Amino acid sequence: MIHITRREHFNAAHKLYNPKWSEEQNAEVFGKCANPNWHGHNYNLYVTVKGKVNQDTGFSVNLKELSVIIRTYVTDKLDHKNLNMDVDFLKDLMPSTENVAIAIWKILTPHVNALDCQLHCIKLCETENNYVEYFGEQ
Amino acid sequence: MIHITRREHFNAAHKLYNPKWSEEQNAEVFGKCANPNWHGHNYNLYVTVKGKVNQDTGFSVNLKELSVIIRTYVTDKLDHKNLNMDVDFLKDLMPSTENVAIAIWKILTPHVNALDCQLHCIKLCETENNYVEYFGEQ
Amino acid sequence: MIHITRREHFNAAHKLYNPKWSEEQNAEVFGKCANPNWHGHNYNLYVTVKGKVNQDTGFSVNLKELSVIIRTYVTDKLDHKNLNMDVDFLKDLMPSTENVAIAIWKILTPHVNALDCQLHCIKLCETENNYVEYFGEQ
Amino acid sequence: MIHITRREHFNAAHKLYNPKWSEEQNAEVFGKCANPNWHGHNYNLYVTVKGKVNQDTGFSVNLKELSVIIRTYVTDKLDHKNLNMDVDFLKDLMPSTENVAIAIWKILTPHVNALDCQLHCIKLCETENNYVEYFGEQ
Amino acid sequence: MIHITRREHFNAAHKLYNPKWSEEQNAEVFGKCANPNWHGHNYNLYVTVKGKVNQDTGFSVNLKELSVIIRTYVTDKLDHKNLNMDVDFLKDLMPSTENVAIAIWKILTPHVNALDCQLHCIKLCETENNYVEYFGEQ
Amino acid sequence: MIHITRREHFNAAHKLYNPKWSEEQNAEVFGKCANPNWHGHNYNLYVTVKGKVNQDTGFSVNLKELSVIIRTYVTDKLDHKNLNMDVDFLKDLMPSTENVAIAIWKILTPHVNALDCQLHCIKLCETENNYVEYFGEQ
Repeated sequence: MIHITRREHFNAAHKLYNPKWSEEQNAEVFGKCANPNWHGHNYNLYVTVKGKVNQDTGFSVNLKELSVIIRTYVTDKLDHKNLNMDVDFLKDLMPSTENVAIAIWKILTPHVNALDCQLHCIKLCETENNYVEYFGEQ
Repeated sequence: MIHITRREHFNAAHKLYNPKWSEEQNAEVFGKCANPNWHGHNYNLYVTVKGKVNQDTGFSVNLKELSVIIRTYVTDKLDHKNLNMDVDFLKDLMPSTENVAIAIWKILTPHVNALDCQLHCIKLCETENNYVEYFGEQ
Repeated sequence: MIHITRREHFNAAHKLYNPKWSEEQNAEVFGKCANPNWHGHNYNLYVTVKGKVNQDTGFSVNLKELSVIIRTYVTDKLDHKNLNMDVDFLKDLMPSTENVAIAIWKILTPHVNALDCQLHCIKLCETENNYVEYFGEQ
Repeated sequence: MIHITRREHFNAAHKLYNPKWSEEQNAEVFGKCANPNWHGHNYNLYVTVKGKVNQDTGFSVNLKELSVIIRTYVTDKLDHKNLNMDVDFLKDLMPSTENVAIAIWKILTPHVNALDCQLHCIKLCETENNYVEYFGEQ
Repeated sequence: MIHITRREHFNAAHKLYNPKWSEEQNAEVFGKCANPNWHGHNYNLYVTVKGKVNQDTGFSVNLKELSVIIRTYVTDKLDHKNLNMDVDFLKDLMPSTENVAIAIWKILTPHVNALDCQLHCIKLCETENNYVEYFGEQ
Repeated sequence: MIHITRREHFNAAHKLYNPKWSEEQNAEVFGKCANPNWHGHNYNLYVTVKGKVNQDTGFSVNLKELSVIIRTYVTDKLDHKNLNMDVDFLKDLMPSTENVAIAIWKILTPHVNALDCQLHCIKLCETENNYVEYFGEQ
């Protein structure tokens, strides 16, 4: 068993704003992230899968195939988009790094399983100072 | 004479869209950058100034002072903002990396001169694959 | 449950030298790190905490609050300091990367708990080639 | 118990090609990695070991000694070499990132044990977008 | 006038070996770079062009077009290739970083001119410690 | 003519303190950099030389030779040292990044000339946010 990771990326706009709260509450909790006119990030996404090494290929997973899956189901839908408005699988979610990472985990799980691998970690980096890692734990 | 550079950064939303053009023209020229609901970036800004070394301090410029100037007049106005909508010194400008860099040059020039230095270069990095450098040339 | 990481940094001087040993022993074990006049590093500190995602905020922890805690109790006390001489919580400790990371773990644990999170890992990078990770294991 | 990591690197040529397969099968599975005239990479190798902190040194392992072991038994044999042709411990192996990482694990285990530590992880980065991690799991 | 830079990359094998010389001379000058079975690198290529900012687009050059040109004429021909054997425009050249950079300059010049820009610099990074820059100077 | 750059590095302690000034003046100008017990940095040094490409080697300079010169005359004297106390060529100099870069320029010039090249730039990075470049200009 070995872990293998593929990095992909997307550039997106978002804001953190809870419509059930007052302006003051939003400002207090989210600070400048609540700017009504949005802000944005270059996101780096690291997808780690776990699998056995196939002796004919030397691969635990073919990274070309993994990359196609990540692009098709995730980054093509997020890149140059607004995470609050444009993404079907983020509907009605606060687009925090945590929630986006968990949503990506749910989207990718069946596709990674179909490659005879197991999804191990979604690491999503919002800036060079902040990132989250989700391992599927409830 | 020596060159000294300070890096600052800001995270912002923008879109590239020319209202004088049709949707088709915008899509053809700007591609996914024309998404009406915005996208965004983590921008890295490198400000290079040129000056003589003061023998009492060993400094060509005091970087604490340079940093305050860049934050006050530039990055505090750009960080967590929408470059098309929220920034006084970008009004009526297409917020391409080129135009933002040139606007920053104009803003910073008098403040750098007041430090007895000369602004040498504004380098603005939009992604790890794209950046512009402006040296004040017409 | 999700892991979230905040990077902070500090620049400090230190030396590795055991006063119970001879010069020769110190030189043999610590090499150039034993230079009596000190040397120094730009340290990168990654603090990882584990928590549940709050549905009102989308946050497992508010990174602004986590950052304030790390700066107040750790990096403000280490930045531009001498790790052998200037830091109360490193008194009588050899300031190896291991010992500094473990000391930071002890300092941060109660403050992270007060945020309804659990400290998961202190990762401390001394150079681009060397780092330690401490998970609280005895 | 603490984890400590040392980065070393090597630049090498390789190709991914299964001689039991037709050209078409090789092209389909390995794509441009099957180029008969080779291609190459700058590999970054991160070796993580786990140990107790010695109170006389502050070290879980002396990184100078760990570095010598990695260079002597691993990177000196891989650097500026052809991974398919020149390396005794990769004989008859498809030199995929997975297989090279596992081979390095086997080589380093006894030497790390001799330092009173335990090998925890071999992380091998082939490009800035791809890496594997091996933890010794069967 | 503004400078704009696009990064592309390619992974390739090569060796440095002068067939007019003895083995000893090759070993003395090129060291391990002369390994007969090749070695390789992840190359980063930065192409800087100089142009006027078009007021309708905010662009000095459309980076999508510049990227297509670099990929079509340069990196598609170098990526996952052997620089000594596989590349028409490197025929009969020692594939040192210097010579590869100069060859790329010659290839790209007419294509950049066709975009109404001027090629300013080819920066080619062989490792994180070594790079060359060519500005077209004879 | 081509520019070629070699990166080397050193880790050192220093402080910025002018003994002709009062404590208050030092604190005002140098802030935390004036800490009497020192602080330190991981410095990255980029040495750029300019030369003609030799057709037998493909080299403008042999980087192995350039690296030996930089290590022998510069980084071996700075690494794991105190820049205020331990370095002959920094005697009586305020060890600001500017002054260290200029001192390195003076040290390296004759040795680079002896390789039939011309020293073009000393770039010295103190942190990921600050660096200076010296081109030999008076």
